[in-house]
Amino acid sequence: MSFKNSKVVIVGTGNVGSTTAYSILNQGLCEEIVLIDVNKDKAYAEALDMAHSVYFMNRNINVHAGDYNDCADADVVIITASAPMPKDSTSRLEMLAPSMRIMKSIVSSIMASGFNGILLVISNPVDIMTYYAWKISGLPAKQVIGSGTNLDSARLCCELAKLYDLDAKSVSAFVCGEHGDSEFVVWNSATIGGKKIDDVMSDNAPRTGSATKQSLLKMTAQSGWEIFSRKGNTCYGIAASATSIVKSILFNENQIYPVTVYVDGAYGLKGVFLSVPTIIDKTGAKEVVEIKLQPDEEAALQKSASLLKSFYKELEM
Amino acid sequence: MSFKNSKVVIVGTGNVGSTTAYSILNQGLCEEIVLIDVNKDKAYAEALDMAHSVYFMNRNINVHAGDYNDCADADVVIITASAPMPKDSTSRLEMLAPSMRIMKSIVSSIMASGFNGILLVISNPVDIMTYYAWKISGLPAKQVIGSGTNLDSARLCCELAKLYDLDAKSVSAFVCGEHGDSEFVVWNSATIGGKKIDDVMSDNAPRTGSATKQSLLKMTAQSGWEIFSRKGNTCYGIAASATSIVKSILFNENQIYPVTVYVDGAYGLKGVFLSVPTIIDKTGAKEVVEIKLQPDEEAALQKSASLLKSFYKELEM
Amino acid sequence: MSFKNSKVVIVGTGNVGSTTAYSILNQGLCEEIVLIDVNKDKAYAEALDMAHSVYFMNRNINVHAGDYNDCADADVVIITASAPMPKDSTSRLEMLAPSMRIMKSIVSSIMASGFNGILLVISNPVDIMTYYAWKISGLPAKQVIGSGTNLDSARLCCELAKLYDLDAKSVSAFVCGEHGDSEFVVWNSATIGGKKIDDVMSDNAPRTGSATKQSLLKMTAQSGWEIFSRKGNTCYGIAASATSIVKSILFNENQIYPVTVYVDGAYGLKGVFLSVPTIIDKTGAKEVVEIKLQPDEEAALQKSASLLKSFYKELEM
Amino acid sequence: MSFKNSKVVIVGTGNVGSTTAYSILNQGLCEEIVLIDVNKDKAYAEALDMAHSVYFMNRNINVHAGDYNDCADADVVIITASAPMPKDSTSRLEMLAPSMRIMKSIVSSIMASGFNGILLVISNPVDIMTYYAWKISGLPAKQVIGSGTNLDSARLCCELAKLYDLDAKSVSAFVCGEHGDSEFVVWNSATIGGKKIDDVMSDNAPRTGSATKQSLLKMTAQSGWEIFSRKGNTCYGIAASATSIVKSILFNENQIYPVTVYVDGAYGLKGVFLSVPTIIDKTGAKEVVEIKLQPDEEAALQKSASLLKSFYKELEM
Repeated sequence: MSFKNSKVVIVGTGNVGSTTAYSILNQGLCEEIVLIDVNKDKAYAEALDMAHSVYFMNRNINVHAGDYNDCADADVVIITASAPMPKDSTSRLEMLAPSMRIMKSIVSSIMASGFNGILLVISNPVDIMTYYAWKISGLPAKQVIGSGTNLDSARLCCELAKLYDLDAKSVSAFVCGEHGDSEFVVWNSATIGGKKIDDVMSDNAPRTGSATKQSLLKMTAQSGWEIFSRKGNTCYGIAASATSIVKSILFNENQIYPVTVYVDGAYGLKGVFLSVPTIIDKTGAKEVVEIKLQPDEEAALQKSASLLKSFYKELEM
Repeated sequence: MSFKNSKVVIVGTGNVGSTTAYSILNQGLCEEIVLIDVNKDKAYAEALDMAHSVYFMNRNINVHAGDYNDCADADVVIITASAPMPKDSTSRLEMLAPSMRIMKSIVSSIMASGFNGILLVISNPVDIMTYYAWKISGLPAKQVIGSGTNLDSARLCCELAKLYDLDAKSVSAFVCGEHGDSEFVVWNSATIGGKKIDDVMSDNAPRTGSATKQSLLKMTAQSGWEIFSRKGNTCYGIAASATSIVKSILFNENQIYPVTVYVDGAYGLKGVFLSVPTIIDKTGAKEVVEIKLQPDEEAALQKSASLLKSFYKELEM
Repeated sequence: MSFKNSKVVIVGTGNVGSTTAYSILNQGLCEEIVLIDVNKDKAYAEALDMAHSVYFMNRNINVHAGDYNDCADADVVIITASAPMPKDSTSRLEMLAPSMRIMKSIVSSIMASGFNGILLVISNPVDIMTYYAWKISGLPAKQVIGSGTNLDSARLCCELAKLYDLDAKSVSAFVCGEHGDSEFVVWNSATIGGKKIDDVMSDNAPRTGSATKQSLLKMTAQSGWEIFSRKGNTCYGIAASATSIVKSILFNENQIYPVTVYVDGAYGLKGVFLSVPTIIDKTGAKEVVEIKLQPDEEAALQKSASLLKSFYKELEM
Repeated sequence: MSFKNSKVVIVGTGNVGSTTAYSILNQGLCEEIVLIDVNKDKAYAEALDMAHSVYFMNRNINVHAGDYNDCADADVVIITASAPMPKDSTSRLEMLAPSMRIMKSIVSSIMASGFNGILLVISNPVDIMTYYAWKISGLPAKQVIGSGTNLDSARLCCELAKLYDLDAKSVSAFVCGEHGDSEFVVWNSATIGGKKIDDVMSDNAPRTGSATKQSLLKMTAQSGWEIFSRKGNTCYGIAASATSIVKSILFNENQIYPVTVYVDGAYGLKGVFLSVPTIIDKTGAKEVVEIKLQPDEEAALQKSASLLKSFYKELEM
């Protein structure tokens, strides 16, 4: 008898990694969570603190510190570790170099364990880091996912929900492209309660006020900075986003989220990692949903793709 | 200090009423659930059976049998009781008469308690029974909601999800109008992962197969009968639908569901209870979402409205 | 890559089987639930009704009707089917014969699929049926569990909680032995909030009233009948009990429940299936907890064991 | 109609306060969470970060930054704020003075809002701070609760569960007294699966190894420091503990937890705040469970009480 297991490994126990572990615990998604950090004391202490919390939760989950051997039979490995951007760097490559070194070391260690599950990358810049992790790993592309614009979409839905006093889950809107300045919203098919966004905004003029689609996208893109500038990090939104992706993998839910995946053919793109709505099941990025974009959205997507691909050559080493 | 309470009363402990209570228990939505039935032994036994189940659940909920006095401080009262349709009746009114008698008796008893919360009607034909319950109750219209096409929408999303192997929650589509033969789908703004339904259906021709929008609506409308004809009742879908409405009320969630509400002004309609997407909060039907319909959808809605209003005069007594 | 799955098969879609499936759905415990019934229409209709409910739930679970081939890769198979007791039977064996025939047929079909997971038996008389299912199956004894006195314990805790106005989960008390007339309570170590039951009962005399340990056990043992006699079945308590066992298996929780397991050595017993506190993990009945019993409890356990074993010979065929 | 609300206010958005808010969000316990901090930017940023996470959760909760006016209609206000201990202080009073100043200011502001709900104190030293908060507040004693040894009990159960490879929730053991060096375990009635701890430890000698009741208590008392010394704070365990108390209040669960409450009569104590098992409902500390202690436990409790009461005079100002 081969008794099954559901196991998530989290690499990096900073705010994002630890909060993600705690979210998974609270939502009772798996049987085992393993925390890995170069600072072994930190990983040990976070795991012990969380282990005490399990007593008060609905499901017993075995959370503990571990090492890369734990990845061997993991369903999902989440990479949250990253390096601080060097100051006064003169080139893009110089800026990315420290994060790439860390990513290379982590992914190599993960793969050395024999890991063959889903790799979920949260480290920023997430689109590039996801591509890079895929390259290093040698895994089939569908097994490598980045958190991408899943959080940006949540933030946009959140802004719209606040404007019209709604549950954000009643808003259907997708932010796609690069998780960064070139991201865009698929406004054309965005709806609230089955009503098109343009109609919602014009029919509710007093509540819409001075908000425009441009200002909503801007607020969405800036809200990470709004948080970071005031508390020094962001962790809850991104942890919840990562947890939703893990849930769709572990329970084979086939939910659709806009996440960083390998787009090769769809949207007229070739071999680039960026965010588009994707059906997520236990095999990872099962299938990309190819929306018919408006010309300006199409242009924004191509711009995101070009920008991201311009990094790929420099990453070859 | 005025200690708050959250209390749901369910009238009728047949399959629908009991399963709804059990759903609310499993999801841990309130502090107290009261079951009322003309068959007091049945209500007592269902409550005792459920009380034993609470030991194994995450939240302690006080479930017990009660009487109409329990409605006095209830947040939500759910009416599930109905009468069997008389055979060989010669008029619509004759067919409805037994159900109306029961509804009148129940609503009068509820209101005599001093109840001033949200009345959720599940009894069929739900649009007419919701109107009738409102009339008898004298409650503000927004405090009276029928389960309406919320389940039909779920069934449609479920059909689409099965066709394309997805989580039904990733489908955004609304069935509106009468919970019955004249119901229709707002296809124009229906999407899957931000992609319009027409594009989804044509881009996935092999999986779409012979399915059409017409056939999907037909399967949706028939699926209740598919179930009923094989097991003699339907209970799980309707109980989950009712529970979702209760959740949005009790937690003031402001979710949008297509439910039977009083439409008076929106959609060019005057004074009719039928299903349209509605923002649901702790005050009940907070606000109707007025979608710009296509001409055929508009016609279907008017047809639903006319049909339903044609009953109203006969119900005056 | 071997993508993992978590799958529960339920045999028998009467009230108990269907309600158990619905509990597992509501609590979001696995990826797939399969319903099997000799009445294929019934299984189809129950599954379809439940599939619609999933739209309103937090986790997407694939629930569908199936056949015994579905057991091949199931983690847990739950047997709820049973036969009505024949009237006017002259011997115990005659009374059991119909249920045994059904059990033999079911277990043979399950095993023919290549099943090698955990078999959970709910069919009554549960201690005998669990033994019989084990015999037929040829599975290692730890992979065969009966729901046993898990529900009886919940009912006792529920009675005590009602008496002292508490959450039943704050009561620690175990009913052991035969799920039936010879069951007994391990009173000596029963506590409420760390306080021994005897002290609780004497210190709260006004609330204890005329209740005694004897009367509490009697009420516990009778409460199934209290329910059955009024509504014709019991389903919610037993479904929640079964779900708690499934949860401890699927999430490898190592919770301790009093369930029907093979006791061979502990408690001075040899080769008998009856209920004692048992650590339940993904391998099934991992380990029996051997409580030091008081003389009267010891006698009750031996009586239960003798009674049950007296059937075993007759079951040989 | 008086629409009800369930609202939790958290004062202090350091690690403990923020993590507690996030736990309550994840478990979906109320309708509204308000964060208050002297650093308004911090409170704003934590709330915004959490608001984005709600999109991915099962229940829509309105989380936002606020001020003390928000306490007016709160069900529960949680105080997590505290001051760093001054170095080189020469007296106990000098050490406590900064925390007392902060507590006085916070509680005065809370009460000025007209608050009349349950005050939950997490700030350390929790027994003294709970007493002090009660004094300042003028609230009935049962409405003031400290997190006390609830977490210590979880940690002890966790240690035992690790030793014997169990779900910690299957262990029934209570740490009582001062949340600090003089705390003790009520070993006499502690059980695992209905088996007394002494029997568990002796019957499982190989797994028990060198562990003794003394060493287990020591590990329990030290585990906070084990965590703190490695990561600079503890947050997950204490947040989960506080959340369990909030849950029992908001859902009127009547769960029993060992928390810091006003003991006045029970256990032969007069007017002291320390931890004993307590039934918690929507009115707060509904009732103390008075366990018959062993002589050494009795002595430890008296020692805890004397120690704590020796501070009370100095706190008069």
